[in-house]
Amino acid sequence: MELDFVASLLSRIPADPRLEVPPGDDAAVLRPPAERRTVVTVDMLMEGVDFILDEACDPRLVGHKALAVNLSDLAAMAARPEAAVVAVALPRRGGDSLGRGLLDGILALAAEQGITLAGGDTNAWDGPLVISITAVGSVPPGRAWRRDGARPGDLLVVSGACGGSLLGRHLAVVPRCREALAIADRFPVHAAIDVSDGLSLDLSRLMQASGTAAVIDLAAIPIHPDANRMAGIPGDGRSPLDHALADGEDFELLLAMPAADARRLAVEAVDLAGTPFTVIGEVVEGAGILARAADGSTAALAPRGYEHAFTG
Amino acid sequence: MELDFVASLLSRIPADPRLEVPPGDDAAVLRPPAERRTVVTVDMLMEGVDFILDEACDPRLVGHKALAVNLSDLAAMAARPEAAVVAVALPRRGGDSLGRGLLDGILALAAEQGITLAGGDTNAWDGPLVISITAVGSVPPGRAWRRDGARPGDLLVVSGACGGSLLGRHLAVVPRCREALAIADRFPVHAAIDVSDGLSLDLSRLMQASGTAAVIDLAAIPIHPDANRMAGIPGDGRSPLDHALADGEDFELLLAMPAADARRLAVEAVDLAGTPFTVIGEVVEGAGILARAADGSTAALAPRGYEHAFTG
Repeated sequence: MELDFVASLLSRIPADPRLEVPPGDDAAVLRPPAERRTVVTVDMLMEGVDFILDEACDPRLVGHKALAVNLSDLAAMAARPEAAVVAVALPRRGGDSLGRGLLDGILALAAEQGITLAGGDTNAWDGPLVISITAVGSVPPGRAWRRDGARPGDLLVVSGACGGSLLGRHLAVVPRCREALAIADRFPVHAAIDVSDGLSLDLSRLMQASGTAAVIDLAAIPIHPDANRMAGIPGDGRSPLDHALADGEDFELLLAMPAADARRLAVEAVDLAGTPFTVIGEVVEGAGILARAADGSTAALAPRGYEHAFTG
Repeated sequence: MELDFVASLLSRIPADPRLEVPPGDDAAVLRPPAERRTVVTVDMLMEGVDFILDEACDPRLVGHKALAVNLSDLAAMAARPEAAVVAVALPRRGGDSLGRGLLDGILALAAEQGITLAGGDTNAWDGPLVISITAVGSVPPGRAWRRDGARPGDLLVVSGACGGSLLGRHLAVVPRCREALAIADRFPVHAAIDVSDGLSLDLSRLMQASGTAAVIDLAAIPIHPDANRMAGIPGDGRSPLDHALADGEDFELLLAMPAADARRLAVEAVDLAGTPFTVIGEVVEGAGILARAADGSTAALAPRGYEHAFTG
């Protein structure tokens, strides 16, 4: 029954000095850090859409992903993770062990990233698993990275490498929180987004919000080994570069920064938790994305990636 | 497609001075009110469990309920509503108009209750509608109403009337936010909860958290006319009082207060947005709930209400 189940879940949540009223009441009460803004983001994952529960994906991994994608959004705002609340719709059959597994994954990542679990809502139904996490972070006033600040002359920098995330990284998401905070401390960043739906699609969103265009160097795009592996699957019919530009769920940081700072970041990146940063192009006046090939020729690039479709 | 759909939703959200970065970025940035704590709560509603979309329940009403139940949790903490984020899984077929209807209901209640919509996550799938709202409120340090503060000698006070909410009030939820803030300004409240799962069940939770017992006067329980109507339905087989004690989804406030204050509140309540407050019993040492009949005899009352059940 719910009361015992929820009580057993609550008993596993570690105490945290940020909580004036811990989980288990009608709401949690947080002590917000002084002189900082509150950053809020929410992401919902649905079974059959964002994950399929099978041998390759246990509940723990789903809990990890559900929190990690929210942490990635906080990273893209240069926000320090503070607290999260979790709402779940658990399938009636097996929901108990599923719920415990989800919490395992959430608590492990929460401990690693220094975010406290402040509460939740546990429901049962006859449908598939749905999990929605809201993450709360903090950032000094006026210091959040927005999407609309890119300026012509900025260089575009991406962390890690992109493409082929479906081979496993779309579940074992590594949010770039530490990297974001370290960069925010040391570099000016004009605009930022995390690569959730596809490098080219998220780049187009960044440029649209900023009222600018991008020229990217195709040869500079960091292609993940998974993108090569996927392109090698018989019948795939797509290039590794195409995977890197369109697959999404990379959860890398895409930044627009003053040119000198971008170059310095790409060189110094070895200090940032070992995560490489790569200059992939520049911001120019105009709209859209221009792709520059190795021979110097350019062509318009249509942004591609994951979009939710409705009918009727 | 999602981009246009989300853009059209975002364009309808009014600007708010509490937002340093408005919805549409990776996360929203809020200016937290100075010298106040942050209160966070989340509730998820699932089609077929919490509502059924039909002639009696349009998407607007679902949006209303999804926000209202969260506001009720803020009220139960004596928190002032500040901001909310919304995550939805929309059925692919008809999801577009469904999403717009939900937002209609959310925005209308948000405007009425002074809460700003800070962002969300819009998804499509082949499953039923799921909506999860996280509400953020604020309260002065140490002033949130908790569940664990009831003391022997306190009187128990409930707002409005209970029972029969399924006849419509479970959707057209009226959160008691204004009443809660007015009471917090003028009266000491030792413990509070909102009646979501059933008056007797939520009372038992309040007593359990406080380590106390309750004696309630059955003749004093405010029974809603809907409870009488439901009891009158042929085959119902339950008394109006039983509906009031066990139905749930009343979203009334249940408070434990010093006796003199409780009596004063029950008399003065006419000032509190017209909502009546009724003394229904008292807090005593021990555990559980004792029900006192009109003839003065008492019997243990087993808490009943809505609980989520799992199998396997």
